[in-house]
Amino acid sequence: MKRIKCIVAYDGTNFLGYQIQNQGRTVQGELEKVLKRMHKGERVPVYASGRTDTHVHALGQVIHFDSPLDLRLENWQKALNAQLPEDISILHVEFVPETFHARYSSIGKEYHYRVLLKKERDPFLRNYSYHFPYDVDVKAMRAGMYHFLGTHDFTSFSSAKSTVENRVRTINRFDVIEMEDELQFQIRGNGFLYNMVRIIIGTVLEVGTGKRDPNEIEKILERKDRASAGKTAPGCGLYLYKVFYE
Amino acid sequence: MKRIKCIVAYDGTNFLGYQIQNQGRTVQGELEKVLKRMHKGERVPVYASGRTDTHVHALGQVIHFDSPLDLRLENWQKALNAQLPEDISILHVEFVPETFHARYSSIGKEYHYRVLLKKERDPFLRNYSYHFPYDVDVKAMRAGMYHFLGTHDFTSFSSAKSTVENRVRTINRFDVIEMEDELQFQIRGNGFLYNMVRIIIGTVLEVGTGKRDPNEIEKILERKDRASAGKTAPGCGLYLYKVFYE
Repeated sequence: MKRIKCIVAYDGTNFLGYQIQNQGRTVQGELEKVLKRMHKGERVPVYASGRTDTHVHALGQVIHFDSPLDLRLENWQKALNAQLPEDISILHVEFVPETFHARYSSIGKEYHYRVLLKKERDPFLRNYSYHFPYDVDVKAMRAGMYHFLGTHDFTSFSSAKSTVENRVRTINRFDVIEMEDELQFQIRGNGFLYNMVRIIIGTVLEVGTGKRDPNEIEKILERKDRASAGKTAPGCGLYLYKVFYE
Repeated sequence: MKRIKCIVAYDGTNFLGYQIQNQGRTVQGELEKVLKRMHKGERVPVYASGRTDTHVHALGQVIHFDSPLDLRLENWQKALNAQLPEDISILHVEFVPETFHARYSSIGKEYHYRVLLKKERDPFLRNYSYHFPYDVDVKAMRAGMYHFLGTHDFTSFSSAKSTVENRVRTINRFDVIEMEDELQFQIRGNGFLYNMVRIIIGTVLEVGTGKRDPNEIEKILERKDRASAGKTAPGCGLYLYKVFYE
């Protein structure tokens, strides 16, 4: 038995998210379908670093699975890519010890979020960024973003539906790159709660338009109440960029 | 009655091309549907600079139509964009004299063609470029491309189905920009036959992989026979970039 780790990219547009559901097309579903075919109809469970929601993309999702097959690394990559649909691509494959677990061994993640500021919509980016055609004050946003750095209880910035007990997380980096007509947010932390990145971005954009003061962020964190934070930004702007391991 | 000219961008992925068909979603179909709604159920015919095929994109398609409505320019743009689907965007609107015709007044066009050279496919570019994971000799391609410049009979480089009588066209510019993992071809001419750009690109790529000699292009042109040219490159890599008028 060998444990195989893969780095996977996918275009989330036509997926109901990563995790298998009773109905609908999912990334895990497509991966397991191919593995089942390769293992004579036997189910091979695939474990990911975490789920991604409907329409959320991945540039560096990490998964693992165990297999008795005797294939060389290059052939694993070729066999998987040959059978997977075109909106999923295996970027890298490696053999890992059995102590490795895509989810439990992860020590951090980086997400990117693309915001399109152009007045007119862009048909080519409609599924790949959040169209936000308003004037934003990037300086004010940066002042607000600063308050997220460090270790906080992120209850205010997680879905009210979340049932996780411990909502303390650490953000190590939170940056925004200004491009022509576009903002790219980059956020890195030791872990993220359900909808956390999207609520953070939604709130930071409200700081950008002047709807909120940058210093309000600190108070929202203290309140531990989802209702005091901003809107959840749409999934199509979000990219799981990288998963970190020891 | 006013004649209105629009510059239109569309993501061709989910269209069966520009022109209205008996079945299937088309760009013209979507445009006329919106105009009909704005004109109390009256059909408003839309004229384009030319058709684009299934999956072909446009960054600067030009259309015109006539309307008795008394709307200001900005309001035309807003009204159309508000009702059009997200994969079509009106970039620019202007009033033109009745002598203007999107197709017959055009004096030239520029197309771009994107080729992805990366070994691994890219899920995000699957609908926006031609994945061609082979080593290509760009110098040889440039040598071949040179033979297309000027005025030639392009019968060899047009669909065998084409019924147009006069197949003489002039290419003023044919360039290739090398980017990381990608080639972008830019071709400008006074007009293009059915499938012409895609057959030219398919043939130039065969020069790139060494399957054909750069000097063969001249002979293929002389033969006036579709069978002597290369494969038709796929539609998803092609972009109607600009239409020129006096």
